[in-house]
Amino acid sequence: MPDENLPNENPVRSHVTRLRVRYAETDQMGVVYYANYLIWMEVGRAEYCRAAGIRYRDMEEDDGIRLAVVEAHCRYLHPARYDEEIAVKTRVANASRRGVEFQYEISDARSGRQLAYGETKHLFLGAGMRPVKLPEKYWALYGIEPLAETPRIT
Amino acid sequence: MPDENLPNENPVRSHVTRLRVRYAETDQMGVVYYANYLIWMEVGRAEYCRAAGIRYRDMEEDDGIRLAVVEAHCRYLHPARYDEEIAVKTRVANASRRGVEFQYEISDARSGRQLAYGETKHLFLGAGMRPVKLPEKYWALYGIEPLAETPRIT
Amino acid sequence: MPDENLPNENPVRSHVTRLRVRYAETDQMGVVYYANYLIWMEVGRAEYCRAAGIRYRDMEEDDGIRLAVVEAHCRYLHPARYDEEIAVKTRVANASRRGVEFQYEISDARSGRQLAYGETKHLFLGAGMRPVKLPEKYWALYGIEPLAETPRIT
Amino acid sequence: MPDENLPNENPVRSHVTRLRVRYAETDQMGVVYYANYLIWMEVGRAEYCRAAGIRYRDMEEDDGIRLAVVEAHCRYLHPARYDEEIAVKTRVANASRRGVEFQYEISDARSGRQLAYGETKHLFLGAGMRPVKLPEKYWALYGIEPLAETPRIT
Repeated sequence: MPDENLPNENPVRSHVTRLRVRYAETDQMGVVYYANYLIWMEVGRAEYCRAAGIRYRDMEEDDGIRLAVVEAHCRYLHPARYDEEIAVKTRVANASRRGVEFQYEISDARSGRQLAYGETKHLFLGAGMRPVKLPEKYWALYGIEPLAETPRIT
Repeated sequence: MPDENLPNENPVRSHVTRLRVRYAETDQMGVVYYANYLIWMEVGRAEYCRAAGIRYRDMEEDDGIRLAVVEAHCRYLHPARYDEEIAVKTRVANASRRGVEFQYEISDARSGRQLAYGETKHLFLGAGMRPVKLPEKYWALYGIEPLAETPRIT
Repeated sequence: MPDENLPNENPVRSHVTRLRVRYAETDQMGVVYYANYLIWMEVGRAEYCRAAGIRYRDMEEDDGIRLAVVEAHCRYLHPARYDEEIAVKTRVANASRRGVEFQYEISDARSGRQLAYGETKHLFLGAGMRPVKLPEKYWALYGIEPLAETPRIT
Repeated sequence: MPDENLPNENPVRSHVTRLRVRYAETDQMGVVYYANYLIWMEVGRAEYCRAAGIRYRDMEEDDGIRLAVVEAHCRYLHPARYDEEIAVKTRVANASRRGVEFQYEISDARSGRQLAYGETKHLFLGAGMRPVKLPEKYWALYGIEPLAETPRIT
């Protein structure tokens, strides 16, 4: 899948991935059903991590870390339609050792028209689905400063 | 499907519907995937209307009125799990002739434990997916006052 | 959810469950997207088990038994549409200690018109996703004879 | 998305497209939920058409032609897992002016291991969802011979 890393001092802080609207994602209104935008956000998160050299899958399998969503929000501007190529721009808006907040811009890749934007907030969970502090090796992925003592998401 | 209309001066203003978590709705974290809560909200909206004597389907077919979602928000408290019976309590938080805002409480039907809550905002669209004013015959459904001149959702 | 156990010598061998078509399940052709019928079959299987006094969830959690699908087939006769009440009639067509085959009739609950029918074949898996022989306590659920030595699904 | 047209006398008769398994597509068994393979088949069909220079979307919008599925079948060999890259090889197995049958091989793109294979059968529908004969301009897409008088799917 093509991607465009935006110019950025920290190249992992923003990432664009593309996907094609599936027939399965439309509804009888002739546009993409609204819950599917949250799936696209998940794709955006996974590709953000991959672009930074870390597979979300490995974080789950190797370290037992899971990103449990605690909040999701989406504002819909224009409907996405079948077969359109969609660009999902994902960035970390906020992160601490306890959790992370992503922001997304979803647009029509061809025209550049913004279709929706949204945010999701997550907590890091470990064994037994209990909150854990993120291991230091993942801090750079989310732009967490080594000295940041104060969690910004609680 | 069983339902429980809550005690309410306006009996159509709040409605509880129940559904059973499907295997398809879980993910490999062992809980319900987060986008599916928005589908449950849709079920809540449809059953709210049905309890008030109006099928959303008829509104689409007979009058060409569509409820286009412009915003969705969900806050996740506890994960829903496979095979649990879920109660979705839906109410109209705000409505005008131009749009409507629903609120939802999603809980485990057996324990009563609240799992999530959320809101969706919608505009009424007519032919050509253009905003329209809701025909008067549907005002009561959403609790719109006959004299309410000022749209509360714009 | 209402159900109708059909007249049957073995009352657990056939079960009807009902569900309401969700907006999310439609596509832009104005009918239910074809993959969703397989989800309805899953609902049919779960309710078949529940009607027989066994929760599929318990089989997974208590005994680590999983029903891995090895084959699925659906034939579509008439399209299902939004908001219709659907009846899923599920029966065990074949079963051994190694696997089970379900058959489904999917119809419009109001008119009785058959919309689709299908089959799924499953293997019983245990720890490490390896094939296992089904514990005897579940034999009656699938109508497996105590003396049936020859697995009919291999 | 990358694709690999197989060596073939008729280059449109077989096409490989790739996709990445989404978290949303997994279930609590830790593998891809079985209905999602049918969605991947749909992606395969769309990309098959695109590779042949025709967008399925245009066929719907410009000529009102819809591919109504009448049968779907899938055989599952090995489970697909989160984040794997999947190759969907699609070919037309049979076609007439009345309908078309696709075959699919779904495999792990990295190892080449085959995960599933399946078929779908479709009828061409026109206005009012009535069967129509496919306009001649689309014959080459499905490899329909100009002189093939006998429909092979009825």
